[in-house]
Amino acid sequence: MKVSRLGERGIIELIWSVIKKEGGYQSLKDLVLPPSDDASAVRLEDGRHLVLKTDMFNRRTDAPKGMRHRQMGAKAVTINISDLAAKGAWPFAFLFSLGLPRNYKQSSVRSLISGINAAALEYGAPVLGGDVGEARDLIVAGFAVGFSRHLVKRSGASPGDIVAVTGPFGDTSAAYKILLKEMKAPQPLRKTLCRSVYEPRARLEVGIALAESGLVTSSMDSSDGLAFTLNELAKSSDVGFVIDSLPISKSAKDFASLNKLSPEDLALFGGEEYEIVVTVKKGAWKRALGAARYVGGDLIRMGEVVSGKKVVMTKGKKEIPIPAKGWEHLK
Amino acid sequence: MKVSRLGERGIIELIWSVIKKEGGYQSLKDLVLPPSDDASAVRLEDGRHLVLKTDMFNRRTDAPKGMRHRQMGAKAVTINISDLAAKGAWPFAFLFSLGLPRNYKQSSVRSLISGINAAALEYGAPVLGGDVGEARDLIVAGFAVGFSRHLVKRSGASPGDIVAVTGPFGDTSAAYKILLKEMKAPQPLRKTLCRSVYEPRARLEVGIALAESGLVTSSMDSSDGLAFTLNELAKSSDVGFVIDSLPISKSAKDFASLNKLSPEDLALFGGEEYEIVVTVKKGAWKRALGAARYVGGDLIRMGEVVSGKKVVMTKGKKEIPIPAKGWEHLK
Repeated sequence: MKVSRLGERGIIELIWSVIKKEGGYQSLKDLVLPPSDDASAVRLEDGRHLVLKTDMFNRRTDAPKGMRHRQMGAKAVTINISDLAAKGAWPFAFLFSLGLPRNYKQSSVRSLISGINAAALEYGAPVLGGDVGEARDLIVAGFAVGFSRHLVKRSGASPGDIVAVTGPFGDTSAAYKILLKEMKAPQPLRKTLCRSVYEPRARLEVGIALAESGLVTSSMDSSDGLAFTLNELAKSSDVGFVIDSLPISKSAKDFASLNKLSPEDLALFGGEEYEIVVTVKKGAWKRALGAARYVGGDLIRMGEVVSGKKVVMTKGKKEIPIPAKGWEHLK
Repeated sequence: MKVSRLGERGIIELIWSVIKKEGGYQSLKDLVLPPSDDASAVRLEDGRHLVLKTDMFNRRTDAPKGMRHRQMGAKAVTINISDLAAKGAWPFAFLFSLGLPRNYKQSSVRSLISGINAAALEYGAPVLGGDVGEARDLIVAGFAVGFSRHLVKRSGASPGDIVAVTGPFGDTSAAYKILLKEMKAPQPLRKTLCRSVYEPRARLEVGIALAESGLVTSSMDSSDGLAFTLNELAKSSDVGFVIDSLPISKSAKDFASLNKLSPEDLALFGGEEYEIVVTVKKGAWKRALGAARYVGGDLIRMGEVVSGKKVVMTKGKKEIPIPAKGWEHLK
């Protein structure tokens, strides 16, 4: 059977099922984040955690039309750093393996590297190593190394906690409709929307601030889409979420209204939005908001953690299920 | 200009020239191995070094004809661990980003992962994380994390030191001549030679033992070929090497004699041989040999470090230059 029948998440399940069956990371007694979390983490002797993440950027599937090489380089870094941010780890080093087609232009490689280097420095993780090989696609397999004092897992939410997120959603969905389906948006709206896919940034400061505040009970990077992330986060903590307020950006609302689309759908079923979805301890909302704002970030309340397994959104008195749909490679 | 004009090593130079110009790792005060060494290393607060390496395996360029998926997985790990071994670092964790063609068979992925997992465990570096994306080539971008107490750099050799290596050379050259040029070898010679390319292993125990002995002044993984490695190692220490005895395997000699080839050329200009070339402190040879043998490894004397820049091999009273030729991607 072909892997495309499984899709990215099915293949990841296949990988870990092989490793679990044959034995592997289970032998590591200091492993504090399992491979199913956003990143892996191991407790060091000094009490800190070493946090490790690898994520692969492939131009053919991950670079929207019109993206520049410098932006591709920066995105290859961002997709790795975002997972460290969601765990509350400060980045320390970045490495990458580069797959290059033979006919690639030297000037493009130069721009790509410049983008990788600038983003890595911006996040505080200088490039420490790299490898180059030949490939038919342009590929940047990134590897981020970080440290954390207060690690936040995907699991840990309790009924009564508040579900919140570091920023509004919908821009990337709208941008992909402009770039792939040629939907219309006047300037400067078009520019704002497209920037969300050309120049995504990880929510690093707010991620670390929230983790170190000790007020956050679970956390996950939202790059697979808001709907998928909410379902995954709820499942990891074995709880349900009741969302009463969807965080939709002004620009996504404007775009939805111009093109007669559902703004909720834009916000829920996008992807490649690097906000962090968290649950905040009951009674700690104001302090958590303060911690986020203190570092120039934001925190938007979306709803509440409940017992049970439902992940729903309220509309008046009705509860509408939020399906675990999201962006997926190889499907 | 196309990158194929530069070749792998030219591109790596291009990458670091961009990073040096724009600023980067230079800001990290605890960096103890520069990016030009086999791996990167940073001093931790407890005095150990965190050693990081990434190397990419691409089936199209790195899997010889007839290689099984399980062997590909193991090789993707070995190419990373070998660099840690050369630095004297014990592996701690392995991560990988997998690029998969859509039409790949699930059973092949299963075998690949099984090979990765088994090799990672064999080296003491359980798989802690992975990512999957779509690619036209089968790609495994590996990341190895290790720790070291005694780090051995590429630089550090002094005139009078002994040049040595952990094993003999020539088998992979011979194997590629069998697999690519259809040269002949009777069984079991053919099997022995092909095994060297299908199932390479990193010299981990002996690498760590030599580093921790404190008797080794410089060290480098030989996967780019013996001739290239000797030149690179000499250049890094700003010294010359006079090689009086080339370490050629019995099987490579037999193959050379059967096919009327130069056994020296097989040994010098191969590649993908994961031995470690070291320089040993003057007067410490017997102890270094003992350290290598104590862990079941070997150490073969090749020649001596001299001042100046020549890297030569002696034949009778003549000195023949060893050119810095070796295997290179994208060329």
